[in-house]
Amino acid sequence: MSKFHIDCLLEYSVSQATEFIFQVEAAQHEWQHTLAEHVSITPAQLNIQHFERDQSSNRLIRISAAENSRVRLHYSAHVETNIPQRPLDAVENTIAQLPAESLFYLAPSRFCESDLLVNMAIRTFGNSPTGYQRVQAICDWIYNNINYESGSSNNTTSAKDILINRAGVCRDFAHLGIAICRALNIPARFVFGYMPFYKALPDFHAIFEVYLGQQWILFDATNMGTIDEFVRVGTGLDAKDVPFASLFGTAELIKIYPQITKL
Amino acid sequence: MSKFHIDCLLEYSVSQATEFIFQVEAAQHEWQHTLAEHVSITPAQLNIQHFERDQSSNRLIRISAAENSRVRLHYSAHVETNIPQRPLDAVENTIAQLPAESLFYLAPSRFCESDLLVNMAIRTFGNSPTGYQRVQAICDWIYNNINYESGSSNNTTSAKDILINRAGVCRDFAHLGIAICRALNIPARFVFGYMPFYKALPDFHAIFEVYLGQQWILFDATNMGTIDEFVRVGTGLDAKDVPFASLFGTAELIKIYPQITKL
Amino acid sequence: MSKFHIDCLLEYSVSQATEFIFQVEAAQHEWQHTLAEHVSITPAQLNIQHFERDQSSNRLIRISAAENSRVRLHYSAHVETNIPQRPLDAVENTIAQLPAESLFYLAPSRFCESDLLVNMAIRTFGNSPTGYQRVQAICDWIYNNINYESGSSNNTTSAKDILINRAGVCRDFAHLGIAICRALNIPARFVFGYMPFYKALPDFHAIFEVYLGQQWILFDATNMGTIDEFVRVGTGLDAKDVPFASLFGTAELIKIYPQITKL
Amino acid sequence: MSKFHIDCLLEYSVSQATEFIFQVEAAQHEWQHTLAEHVSITPAQLNIQHFERDQSSNRLIRISAAENSRVRLHYSAHVETNIPQRPLDAVENTIAQLPAESLFYLAPSRFCESDLLVNMAIRTFGNSPTGYQRVQAICDWIYNNINYESGSSNNTTSAKDILINRAGVCRDFAHLGIAICRALNIPARFVFGYMPFYKALPDFHAIFEVYLGQQWILFDATNMGTIDEFVRVGTGLDAKDVPFASLFGTAELIKIYPQITKL
Repeated sequence: MSKFHIDCLLEYSVSQATEFIFQVEAAQHEWQHTLAEHVSITPAQLNIQHFERDQSSNRLIRISAAENSRVRLHYSAHVETNIPQRPLDAVENTIAQLPAESLFYLAPSRFCESDLLVNMAIRTFGNSPTGYQRVQAICDWIYNNINYESGSSNNTTSAKDILINRAGVCRDFAHLGIAICRALNIPARFVFGYMPFYKALPDFHAIFEVYLGQQWILFDATNMGTIDEFVRVGTGLDAKDVPFASLFGTAELIKIYPQITKL
Repeated sequence: MSKFHIDCLLEYSVSQATEFIFQVEAAQHEWQHTLAEHVSITPAQLNIQHFERDQSSNRLIRISAAENSRVRLHYSAHVETNIPQRPLDAVENTIAQLPAESLFYLAPSRFCESDLLVNMAIRTFGNSPTGYQRVQAICDWIYNNINYESGSSNNTTSAKDILINRAGVCRDFAHLGIAICRALNIPARFVFGYMPFYKALPDFHAIFEVYLGQQWILFDATNMGTIDEFVRVGTGLDAKDVPFASLFGTAELIKIYPQITKL
Repeated sequence: MSKFHIDCLLEYSVSQATEFIFQVEAAQHEWQHTLAEHVSITPAQLNIQHFERDQSSNRLIRISAAENSRVRLHYSAHVETNIPQRPLDAVENTIAQLPAESLFYLAPSRFCESDLLVNMAIRTFGNSPTGYQRVQAICDWIYNNINYESGSSNNTTSAKDILINRAGVCRDFAHLGIAICRALNIPARFVFGYMPFYKALPDFHAIFEVYLGQQWILFDATNMGTIDEFVRVGTGLDAKDVPFASLFGTAELIKIYPQITKL
Repeated sequence: MSKFHIDCLLEYSVSQATEFIFQVEAAQHEWQHTLAEHVSITPAQLNIQHFERDQSSNRLIRISAAENSRVRLHYSAHVETNIPQRPLDAVENTIAQLPAESLFYLAPSRFCESDLLVNMAIRTFGNSPTGYQRVQAICDWIYNNINYESGSSNNTTSAKDILINRAGVCRDFAHLGIAICRALNIPARFVFGYMPFYKALPDFHAIFEVYLGQQWILFDATNMGTIDEFVRVGTGLDAKDVPFASLFGTAELIKIYPQITKL
């Protein structure tokens, strides 16, 4: 059991009327419990809506910002987490063994073109030990073969592109891990949230989770932090499915500071 | 109100143990009512599971087939449909007006790379009348610019590829329509089902639906049939999200005959 | 017979030592005759080299610029041209009829992926009248289907991309025309040079030429000027083969003004 | 000095009239000398043409085959080669040092998209020792990271695709080596010919050569044979520029047996 304080600040300069959809709140999830939280948005909006994505633990906030305004979102929370010990002997399931709700995460998505990476995945990981060890081998391979470089990718960069560019950021590492797992018929999905970094500035972190044995297990190919210090925000198909912010209009990100402190 | 008889036959020659996930049953949907239906699968399976996708009206069947077997699925049904009259004056929503559950269908998916088609969409349809007329203009453009050709695409062909190849089949027409709509911030999703064709052999049909005004509206860029003679089976992000059959193993499709008759 | 005065100015701010290869001089070509020309480059360089590409009429200039310098190239010329009348009845050749030196221009190149556009080309132009009329139909199609938009493409944009984006500039129009022709087994190559524009600022212009009957014939899908007012500079596989300037180092283009005046 | 006997057989079943362009003859090149050679083609053709590509040592043969015929090409030769010792200390040139005729091989081509691999190349090889050692490091990387697998690629597969698929055949290994070298401003070109294989059936072999110091140097990332046992046939931009056979018509390759024996 660990306790964390989250202090997340986002600030935008809005030049034309813009609709924002934010996802910054700690998820409702069995591995974590929010003791206290507070969202404040300025300017005081006429139209703030909180909502949840139907099938998941994702919590979202919609606001409409007027032109020539400055939007400032501040989220603070105390969260207690209890991520299960890593099940090093978790096995891969046959398709017949997979629960129905995990099947959805076998299909390719925009940024995880698993259907195009089947041959690569089988070639590279077909002879690995299966289960937990195979997914760890995938993470190790990504860590050893892809450079972590800020600015090396953009918001249309997919798993396929990462294999060409050989560089990316956390979301790209996650996309590639997901794509390879799905190509091997291991359900895999994108997870983002807060994680303390000891050698980098605070930022949202993207990792992935796979279904092995009878559970979802988090994996992080970036080795930027410690997985049991992760506080989950969003869970989905890929980064486009659960972005921390979607903007419809014209606004510029002025400040992003998603800080998390272990208590 | 229309009545239809569905008589759908699928047959596979299974060479190695194969898990099938079928989606052939008429959806539970407000526009249609299943009066009677029957699924028979041979050989009698030890392990037939019916399940539904959590958030949607999708109904699925899982079976495990042994090696060197022949799987035969027969689905017959009587379905009554009542698809609303086409609302020719339906308007586009601002993002703020869209219901939360429609937002999911604004994001790009594997086969509908709307994020890569934004400039194309604005260039080609930016000056169209908005709302229903714009989506109809998109369908007309696809119909006039893309050839319908069996065998011109495969199961990795995406909306982007269709613009290069200038040919496709119904799923490709739907993918392109969806991608263009999403690029214009119109929620759009993939729908497949049964539709009587008068000039083609019976087959599943793929179309798409968009959210305008306060409703989902079906569109078909292929002009192969009549939209109010459509019986819905699956609704999802794209063809990979709701395939009529997913196979994990080694099996060959021997027969596909999804017949529908208007009564 | 027409006479032109060319007055071309290029200026670069060089921050780190940079090697330039320029191609701005009127080509040695049977359809044109240079009456007088002058190249001046400042600062006076220690190392200016003029050279020609082996197999073609391309004339190039190499210079080495020091860091923190400003390079200014001025080319002026009087050129007389005599482009043959357009042979409206020129026929397509069988491969057996093509001269050996034209075969080189049947293969795909970096920006003209004709091998990927064979189906598109046959679908769209397979039933056109052949020969001159077919190539004109290709130009008309490009003109009607692709928007001319400054800034809509970049220096990695290929013919395939243009079909997705539906916009480009002159080099993109030429690349698409070339790719479609090669896909139909019509030898086609990239040509750039000077052409008076009546509705646009002076700039280099890119067009293409195809081998029909027993001659190369110029085509321009942009309709920005008059083909018999074209002064040829470079002829090659595509824009990367004959750029007006290649830079190896760090320099910024400050001014580009390739003016041509009909006398 | 080594001596080789070449015995190359190609056989095609021609269903519709087909024009063939073959390139199977040992090149005219300073490193090799053809002592004797013989080409026989059956059926005796009315129209066999030998020609050379203008700027290079490439020798080609064109024939026109009638429908429902069987074309059989047999090439035998005795060739003496004298490939220079490998210059392990060959240095990279600055652009200013490169001879004009090598500059052509810095640009991307259809199958070697060096412009898209600049970041990958700098990331992966930017800190290698330069010159010969860098190109060797590129070959080693390709050998260690790309699987040699017959049938893993096809005739539209490019260097970029190989990085995604992580498998290819000799032409793909060569394309990737060329693309990376060009991305690092090292002139590189495609070379194919005959090489004795000791663990594989006779086939044409594709390698590449780069310009270092004041010479072209052959490199082979496949390690399938010994570079000084190579007999050159074609030299060009990539495999599409110098194929061993181009077909225009409808014919099927029945037999390919390009045997070479060291004497």
